[in-house]
Amino acid sequence: MMVELKELTKRADNYSQWYNDLIVKADLAEQAAVRGCMVIKPYGYAIWEKMQHQLDSMFKETGVQNAYFPLLIPKSFLSREAEHVEGFAKECAVVTHYRLRSKEDKSGIEVDPTAKLDEELIIRPTSETIIWNTYKNWIHSWRDLPLMCNQWCNVMRWEMRTRPFLRTSEFLWQEGHTAHATKEEAEKEAQMMLHVYADFAENWMSMPVVQGVKSETERFAGALNTYTIEAMMQDGKALQSGTSHFLGQNFAKAFDVTYLNKENKPEYVWATSWGVSTRLIGALIMTHSDDNGLVLPPKLAPIQVVIIPISKGSDGLAKISEKAAPIIRQLRESGISVKYDDAENKRPGYKFADYEVKGVPVRLVLGARDIENGTIEVMRRDTLEKETRPIEGIADYVKSLLDEIQKNMFDKAKSFRDAHIYECDDYAEFKEKIKDGGFFLCHWDGTAETEAKIKEETQATIRCEPFGYEPTNGIDMVSGKPASKRVIIARSY
Amino acid sequence: MMVELKELTKRADNYSQWYNDLIVKADLAEQAAVRGCMVIKPYGYAIWEKMQHQLDSMFKETGVQNAYFPLLIPKSFLSREAEHVEGFAKECAVVTHYRLRSKEDKSGIEVDPTAKLDEELIIRPTSETIIWNTYKNWIHSWRDLPLMCNQWCNVMRWEMRTRPFLRTSEFLWQEGHTAHATKEEAEKEAQMMLHVYADFAENWMSMPVVQGVKSETERFAGALNTYTIEAMMQDGKALQSGTSHFLGQNFAKAFDVTYLNKENKPEYVWATSWGVSTRLIGALIMTHSDDNGLVLPPKLAPIQVVIIPISKGSDGLAKISEKAAPIIRQLRESGISVKYDDAENKRPGYKFADYEVKGVPVRLVLGARDIENGTIEVMRRDTLEKETRPIEGIADYVKSLLDEIQKNMFDKAKSFRDAHIYECDDYAEFKEKIKDGGFFLCHWDGTAETEAKIKEETQATIRCEPFGYEPTNGIDMVSGKPASKRVIIARSY
Repeated sequence: MMVELKELTKRADNYSQWYNDLIVKADLAEQAAVRGCMVIKPYGYAIWEKMQHQLDSMFKETGVQNAYFPLLIPKSFLSREAEHVEGFAKECAVVTHYRLRSKEDKSGIEVDPTAKLDEELIIRPTSETIIWNTYKNWIHSWRDLPLMCNQWCNVMRWEMRTRPFLRTSEFLWQEGHTAHATKEEAEKEAQMMLHVYADFAENWMSMPVVQGVKSETERFAGALNTYTIEAMMQDGKALQSGTSHFLGQNFAKAFDVTYLNKENKPEYVWATSWGVSTRLIGALIMTHSDDNGLVLPPKLAPIQVVIIPISKGSDGLAKISEKAAPIIRQLRESGISVKYDDAENKRPGYKFADYEVKGVPVRLVLGARDIENGTIEVMRRDTLEKETRPIEGIADYVKSLLDEIQKNMFDKAKSFRDAHIYECDDYAEFKEKIKDGGFFLCHWDGTAETEAKIKEETQATIRCEPFGYEPTNGIDMVSGKPASKRVIIARSY
Repeated sequence: MMVELKELTKRADNYSQWYNDLIVKADLAEQAAVRGCMVIKPYGYAIWEKMQHQLDSMFKETGVQNAYFPLLIPKSFLSREAEHVEGFAKECAVVTHYRLRSKEDKSGIEVDPTAKLDEELIIRPTSETIIWNTYKNWIHSWRDLPLMCNQWCNVMRWEMRTRPFLRTSEFLWQEGHTAHATKEEAEKEAQMMLHVYADFAENWMSMPVVQGVKSETERFAGALNTYTIEAMMQDGKALQSGTSHFLGQNFAKAFDVTYLNKENKPEYVWATSWGVSTRLIGALIMTHSDDNGLVLPPKLAPIQVVIIPISKGSDGLAKISEKAAPIIRQLRESGISVKYDDAENKRPGYKFADYEVKGVPVRLVLGARDIENGTIEVMRRDTLEKETRPIEGIADYVKSLLDEIQKNMFDKAKSFRDAHIYECDDYAEFKEKIKDGGFFLCHWDGTAETEAKIKEETQATIRCEPFGYEPTNGIDMVSGKPASKRVIIARSY
């Protein structure tokens, strides 16, 4: 599994190729034998585990419990909610048989035609239908509400064009599904979970996001409102990084889920669902990484600090290791993951490049001269700045440096993002500027026609109507009609 | 989701019905809409999370890393390893199409016949084939070895007769897959992981297990040796609770995975795989639970201590809550999960029964008289013993009580198990006694014929040849041939 440390494509030369190269070189994932699917390699999966761990505890703090629902959904379930079926019952993996048999000539195996299912089963593209079919049995009275479950699982959508992490046929995600007694409570839950996602994106991924509401066209199939966090990648494109849906009573009606209210009268339940996926790893890469490889925020880095000894001979190494031991111990006692790489079959230069491409936030180098001088070399991955510091107190210094890197990465990404948000009132100007990417705050007349025209002519879409943006009276730059709000328009992944 | 606290079937009346009832009443799982699949409810899933958490850290301590491989396996992969295909390419879910479409009369959706896959895809029943196809690209030289990956995922086997947790079409598990340079190292790894499983079973599940090796007939399809941990359920049947396989070079040869050794010569890699599943929850239930419901070992209980205040009116409750607060804080500071159930819409009697059926290890009850007397009532779930103790020092007492319960549950299960292990040298006696269950240590001549005869005539199977059991010369009780070893024979789940 040794990384090939050949030149990485430069972002400026070919951003898309840079992304694909980086995923391979940083050992994050690779294309699987099955079309559109990926293998998440240990280093990539370790990032996902850190994300999961943090998100899971944030969900649980809000009272959500984990559960597990079946992978396969009876075909008829998908038809129950009219809009949902339009959105999801298209490109999906269909199980039609439940047995294989040896070919008569023993040349291999084949599907046993006698083992055909009465009703085809669909590999879940999302689980609203099977979960609401289950909730029907769990919800009887107002005392059973709110019901708030989440599951961590795999889902499958038969995507035509795939890219690792960003869009794959199978992906890993979490999907939360909540049931509430009132519309207000469900709306509040959907928005609250969006804030949880934004909090995670900004404070753990160091990735600034715009929170807002999707246009009707861009809504989740079956939702009355879809809330989104949108992040800007380094090429100026938007990446939808998490969504939370207010589903109204659509699924409750489709699956006949009612509860007896305090007056003992049956009422339909109100619903939300919300999810983030391994796509977040793609977002992480494209927000921070550079031409030398991955740059990981310390809070999500599988290895936060690497220490590399430089010695000639095993005698020298023993002395350095002795000096390194208390540093390692102090850092680990503070919960920091440290790798001490004293492998003798790789040259220091190789190690430097490897940890750089893997985005390890802090690198410490200890050589024979350092031991003499009582110093140590510190490099921070985000700026690639090197300095030589006294070895005394280095653990405390590294701890504060990790915090500083976490913050600096956010600030840098936010400066970039803010420098590429434009208010724009002129469609000709928009069409020209959108070629270079960026988020455009434009007045929109609220019609699907205008939205479609923009998409057709510029490949840009309405990402969201951002929260907390003052409504201003203006003119839709495309239709010329009056418009009372600005929305964010951008090209996207 | 309120539990129906109707009478639970007694174990003595109908063990199988007791098991099914208990799963429903303790809110662990339920039958899903899809045949043979289950929904794991929040309380059941919380037990699985605790198991996962501990096992995962035990795996990682041995140097194993997590990764994720695709759900779907190309049909042809399954044929590559001759024995593996015989064992697994039978009852499995087959994906044949990748699209649905609306019916012409708009009455629903149907499979789009034009979207047929060139090669059918199988939902993984286990992942050796897809993982070894991937390892081919990861392994080049001896420096890449050992390669040790694990994945937590769902798998599917189209089982005809299913029972919650014990045998379901879809289940959750972990599967470890390791690659080694030498036969010795792979054998050692396979056995080491078995010991990890045994350690977990005994010290976390309080479930004594016999470690041993499977007969050839009972081996994993494609393995040269299958190691197993076998536990005895309360009805005297065996439950295979975890297996670890030495796969030799079978998969390396099937997928052409070689490495350059230190002499730069290509050699096939040696393999192991090992797994435990949600079946462990079934084992946990059937090892410890009683006619009042679940009995959970403290280390795996989602709620370790429940505190129930008994008061008349909210004024009394406030006084009790004030007294309970420091106890709760002290316990939580020690990492113990405490539920303080002051819900006023349920009677204490209902709460008592509910936490009893859910197997919460320790129940504390605080009433008005306790406050006056400075006492508290303590009940331990394993023995149902109640005592009144001074409230002073109760947190420390509860902590040691949890340890005591963990140990007592193991001792009790071990006494039961040991009392039902018999050396037996007479087939007539065996046939009579096996009806009441138990593990029978019998001489076996090592032939598949004898094994088949025993199975046919008694439904009992060879569970394993236990480790550490002195070989003794004897006579196979069935064939009368000489036999140098005793094996464990039992009926099983």
